[in-house]
Amino acid sequence: MARTVRFHEIGGPDVLKIEDVDVPAPRAGEVRIRTKALGLNRAEVMFRTGTYVSEPRFPALTGYEAAGVIEALGPDVEGFSIGDKVSVVPCFTLGDYGLHGELVNAPAFGVVKHPESLSFEDAAATWMMFVTAYGALVDITRVKPGDVVLIRAASSSVGLAAIQIVNMLGGVSVALTRGSAKRDTLLAAGAAHVVATGEQDLVAEIARISDGRGARIAFDPVGGAEVPKILETLSFLGTYFLYGALETSDIPVPVMSLLGKDLAIRGYQLHEITQDLARLEKAKAFVVEGLASGALKPVIAKTFVFDQIAEAHRYMESNEQVGKIVLTVPD
Amino acid sequence: MARTVRFHEIGGPDVLKIEDVDVPAPRAGEVRIRTKALGLNRAEVMFRTGTYVSEPRFPALTGYEAAGVIEALGPDVEGFSIGDKVSVVPCFTLGDYGLHGELVNAPAFGVVKHPESLSFEDAAATWMMFVTAYGALVDITRVKPGDVVLIRAASSSVGLAAIQIVNMLGGVSVALTRGSAKRDTLLAAGAAHVVATGEQDLVAEIARISDGRGARIAFDPVGGAEVPKILETLSFLGTYFLYGALETSDIPVPVMSLLGKDLAIRGYQLHEITQDLARLEKAKAFVVEGLASGALKPVIAKTFVFDQIAEAHRYMESNEQVGKIVLTVPD
Repeated sequence: MARTVRFHEIGGPDVLKIEDVDVPAPRAGEVRIRTKALGLNRAEVMFRTGTYVSEPRFPALTGYEAAGVIEALGPDVEGFSIGDKVSVVPCFTLGDYGLHGELVNAPAFGVVKHPESLSFEDAAATWMMFVTAYGALVDITRVKPGDVVLIRAASSSVGLAAIQIVNMLGGVSVALTRGSAKRDTLLAAGAAHVVATGEQDLVAEIARISDGRGARIAFDPVGGAEVPKILETLSFLGTYFLYGALETSDIPVPVMSLLGKDLAIRGYQLHEITQDLARLEKAKAFVVEGLASGALKPVIAKTFVFDQIAEAHRYMESNEQVGKIVLTVPD
Repeated sequence: MARTVRFHEIGGPDVLKIEDVDVPAPRAGEVRIRTKALGLNRAEVMFRTGTYVSEPRFPALTGYEAAGVIEALGPDVEGFSIGDKVSVVPCFTLGDYGLHGELVNAPAFGVVKHPESLSFEDAAATWMMFVTAYGALVDITRVKPGDVVLIRAASSSVGLAAIQIVNMLGGVSVALTRGSAKRDTLLAAGAAHVVATGEQDLVAEIARISDGRGARIAFDPVGGAEVPKILETLSFLGTYFLYGALETSDIPVPVMSLLGKDLAIRGYQLHEITQDLARLEKAKAFVVEGLASGALKPVIAKTFVFDQIAEAHRYMESNEQVGKIVLTVPD
């Protein structure tokens, strides 16, 4: 029996219960992890509220990210030993696994022996943010020096990871934020430019920043009615990524932007990378190298303890955080 | 002086005039062609009516396609001789050049010494249709055996070229047409399946044809309100190409299709291929080889003579044609 986050109905943070659950032995291809730290994601809020791409089956487990110590290996699992300090790259869909518990099973192909220098908290914060941003910006579009990259919801953990990756590759990171409240924080986090879309003319600002060339990439977890303006800022052959659905209304795509500039509008979830072993291995290597060189560093907004799971979700919903929300799991 | 199609105002087919124009000597990088046959494109109708991606400056030349005999070479042009039988790959934007005339200048990098076996009429019909379809289906998405490919406006010349290319690569060509009037013609043109979207349930038909896998690619010059249904038929990582703007209204993109299947919505014009020399050379080689093997063959709907340019435009607007409209230029 192990204390595990579960919910039995769609709803607010208080539907989340910590319950004693019988954790089955790891099956073939799985490892069992005694967790030390958990990462919280927007996806888990959406999953809990029934607005995610997959639907919960009750009682539902949840949680994409965890770091801890391997306690048992399923049949045929190679390359790991009991006692290894590991973290998990989200390589499944919520509903198939849930890592928010004291003792969890995870698919071995997503498990990483993370660098020794990384704390459990940092390790639990690393994979969703960096692999998500890596997939779009490196695997798919290969950011090059000088490329202007628009990053919407830039103070989210994935947004901050995108800023770091664009900077690492010599691109020009442009953080988009609604008001100017987070401007200084975003500049301090490495953004080359910050545009407050509620207060500034986005199209004019990007024209100025890019010397009229336009942005090569936009990276957006929001969507909705603002998208046509973002498309307007893109250059010939530019790519707009939608990697989340904070707004669920249809995106109105102006034909003349799409066609006139040969744009790509790309739905993107990190599973595209993590469910393809070859791409996943490249992603892990890129992130491990970036962490080692110091070019990449997880940003933790606030740390809660495991029993505060509902409070942590509430904090996520406040949108006040800058970076990742992490929970520690006491021994 | 040479008889040349020009127009002096936006309007219907009758704004097109055949006028005696002084054709300048070819500049550096240009060749002068005495034309024998001209290809007509939807783009020229849109250009004439002011709905194209570029706007006419009056008096406006027009015409993307021509085949004929080289009569003069601009400075620095290599690889061609006076008397060569050639045709032109559209490698410019209407407004910069116009090939609908008895004597025209064209950029040499788009000029091809077409296979000897090709008539001037077939040569004038070849490049827009095959290079447009090639760019999307081969250069960008590399159709593989078994891939289900939806082809909207399938009786257009580009649609018919797409059917031929998909078949040549072992894919499953699915022609979409509004009613069933053109069904038999499309089957005879090689379509593996025909779906009459006004009469059949597109989503159910594609599920059936693809054994539930969905279509990998949709290739559409129309856009508009039908697009969400097309997106619904696509598989994980599917690509929707918009390569024309027969409907100019915004395309409403459902977030859950885009994000849940990591779709790509791709604006595409053949200039993406023809203005990139390396990609253009590959395109020419693919088409020449396909013509030589017999896998590719231009489909000519109807032939007019040069003086009937307005009538040819009117016929294009009737949407009755299946394949390419060609004009011959008498000696």
